[in-house]
Amino acid sequence: MDLERLREATRRQMPEKRWVHTLGVVSEAAKLAKRFGGDRSKAELAALLHDYAKAWPIERQGQAIRDHGLPAELLEYDKELWHAHVGAWAVQAEHGVDDEEVLDAIRYHTSGRERMTLLDKIVCLADYIEPGRDFPGVNKIRKLAEHNLEEALVAGFDATIAFLMEKGKRIFPLTVIARNGLIDELKDRKKTGSAGG
Amino acid sequence: MDLERLREATRRQMPEKRWVHTLGVVSEAAKLAKRFGGDRSKAELAALLHDYAKAWPIERQGQAIRDHGLPAELLEYDKELWHAHVGAWAVQAEHGVDDEEVLDAIRYHTSGRERMTLLDKIVCLADYIEPGRDFPGVNKIRKLAEHNLEEALVAGFDATIAFLMEKGKRIFPLTVIARNGLIDELKDRKKTGSAGG
Repeated sequence: MDLERLREATRRQMPEKRWVHTLGVVSEAAKLAKRFGGDRSKAELAALLHDYAKAWPIERQGQAIRDHGLPAELLEYDKELWHAHVGAWAVQAEHGVDDEEVLDAIRYHTSGRERMTLLDKIVCLADYIEPGRDFPGVNKIRKLAEHNLEEALVAGFDATIAFLMEKGKRIFPLTVIARNGLIDELKDRKKTGSAGG
Repeated sequence: MDLERLREATRRQMPEKRWVHTLGVVSEAAKLAKRFGGDRSKAELAALLHDYAKAWPIERQGQAIRDHGLPAELLEYDKELWHAHVGAWAVQAEHGVDDEEVLDAIRYHTSGRERMTLLDKIVCLADYIEPGRDFPGVNKIRKLAEHNLEEALVAGFDATIAFLMEKGKRIFPLTVIARNGLIDELKDRKKTGSAGG
């Protein structure tokens, strides 16, 4: 896998604005990996690729879900969630990216999932707080991210859920399950008195 | 089933304050049944019994879940949810209430569920807006309840979810699934142009 070729291929999938966002996520993910003891190269790779399919026409994304056996339940939910699974499929099929940890971090960067890995958390949080982001509550999340990865991510999911409620839209149950898992982690850590990430 | 005996038995399960709430839910459920074409006797019966086990010591509620094959996943979630299933079991076991529609409305009055029946919706909403209730947003829900059962219930679930986020507590995924189902109903109704409930 030639990283420079992958970078250029990724850039070609999206308009300039999305590419600037991608670079922001890469740099934020590197910082979070350093801060919380994650694998920096994997974090940067997953961050680079996280929105690979985001700017694809939605029909092409739906077609990829149907044609390549991606989770069919995605089709019932907000289209915002499709690109994550489609992107993980595409970078594997088109560029041979086969690190399952990296692919999972791409797959679950929007929804989260039940037992999030450190890499999942880093990419998901970096996507919330990269320098270009501006939404209600983002500064609170950035502040939490200075010392607590899970608390910051719960605050990120809370912002997403509040936004969806405000708009009268469906909430992806997996996001609530991911959030519950993080709350359990935080509670367990308090009990055992471990400092944690 | 002697309704007067059932009333007195229910009253004996709870302190006065909870009984006053129960009477509020009965009267609100009757109003909603009339407004939205539900079965008034079933609505009043389910409302009367909805908090049957609410004031039981939590150990007794947990024991009932374990001893009588109620959904074990309840034990992993907020204890606030237990009394609904325990109450449905108790009124059947102790008083022979065997109308499954009524039992389901008791069982799901706190969480909601995927495909809520008209009776489920009436009891759940009545519990949110009975005259004694006072929480942020309750008046908005009361206003919606004047003409749209599903919109009012979505607003009720939104208030619950916002409260749990505020407190940093877990959100029961079934509530999100119930809310998604109501949003789909509202969308389908708009599409078909039907006035609906």
